[in-house]
Amino acid sequence: MRLSELSRRSGVSVTTIKYYLREGLLPPGRQLSATQAEYDDDHLRRLRLIRALTGVRGLSVSTTRDLLGALEEHTGDIHLLLGLSLGSIGPAASAGPAGEPADAASEGSAERAEVDKLVDELGWVVHKGAPARTTLAETLASLRSLGAPLDRRALLPYARLAERTAALDLDQLEGLDDSSEVMERALVLTVLLEPALLALRRLAQENESARRHADG
Amino acid sequence: MRLSELSRRSGVSVTTIKYYLREGLLPPGRQLSATQAEYDDDHLRRLRLIRALTGVRGLSVSTTRDLLGALEEHTGDIHLLLGLSLGSIGPAASAGPAGEPADAASEGSAERAEVDKLVDELGWVVHKGAPARTTLAETLASLRSLGAPLDRRALLPYARLAERTAALDLDQLEGLDDSSEVMERALVLTVLLEPALLALRRLAQENESARRHADG
Repeated sequence: MRLSELSRRSGVSVTTIKYYLREGLLPPGRQLSATQAEYDDDHLRRLRLIRALTGVRGLSVSTTRDLLGALEEHTGDIHLLLGLSLGSIGPAASAGPAGEPADAASEGSAERAEVDKLVDELGWVVHKGAPARTTLAETLASLRSLGAPLDRRALLPYARLAERTAALDLDQLEGLDDSSEVMERALVLTVLLEPALLALRRLAQENESARRHADG
Repeated sequence: MRLSELSRRSGVSVTTIKYYLREGLLPPGRQLSATQAEYDDDHLRRLRLIRALTGVRGLSVSTTRDLLGALEEHTGDIHLLLGLSLGSIGPAASAGPAGEPADAASEGSAERAEVDKLVDELGWVVHKGAPARTTLAETLASLRSLGAPLDRRALLPYARLAERTAALDLDQLEGLDDSSEVMERALVLTVLLEPALLALRRLAQENESARRHADG
């Protein structure tokens, strides 16, 4: 299909598609002439994925490009890709501060040691440089600075529940045999489910609060 | 203490403190003269909370003001406050899209019905207007548009885990008797723990992926 049809079918403007092409988020079409290129269903699917990542999930164009790049490079090695895509975007980085640095020590070494101990105690196989470790340490540092410290003992039951959530996540990928499909789905599940899981926690908190504080 | 000392002890610049005062995030100090006011430890604690919400968590100034306003108004009624603070900021709203609307129907009515059914099946007591319901519906709509649909049956085990996470959250508030302390802590736990919980899921996914895809 031509650019105009790709635009119509994806609901993304021609200008925006050209921008994604220029930024390398979308692979080039098959060049028909100096001014015309042909696009296919892979482009359409990729466009929908880009829109979901940038729109629904609010990721930046450069984070999205890095994620999609990892997807291209590591087709066929799902474990490596999962490590990369999970590692490459810390939740804090995507929902990041609007410029100003936080007060809490961004590299509180006591908290970082606490996180590393937690991971060891859990027996988790996770690489040392995973950004999620830093995100956890930063959260512990801010909670401490707010006078509401949480130690790794308090985090442990949360971690056990996260373990079971992760098992559900990986279950979703079972039975998919086309590698690039597994990759894309892994990305979608990891990144797009995040707001949904937080939303479920909010609803569950409201329910639990109602249950505990019900009159009579 | 004077403004300069409040700035020194909080690590927040005088200009920024004045901005928070003007925007109503920080209550005014006790006026000593036309040009001088006196601040106390409540101001200091409030400043740290503001910095954690805007910095670490990346909330906008207006969302932060709304949350803090709910905190002021509903001291003494923890259930109401929890409903408000949990309801008032959808995760999607805080990590929101950078301007452009998502392709997926933002009010996919089929998905919204699916979410409402899920909540009913769970037996959760949650008000109809909770923004988290919309966040969930939006996620389902994007997953569908990406050809990776998830129905409420797939969400159910996630919801059961969210239930247990929420019970842990509420446990953290037990034994706190000062109402305003409970309120602040509820807010901190709800909002600041979000990136930490997502980080735990990432680490757990990496571990689970390593476990399932280990060679040999």
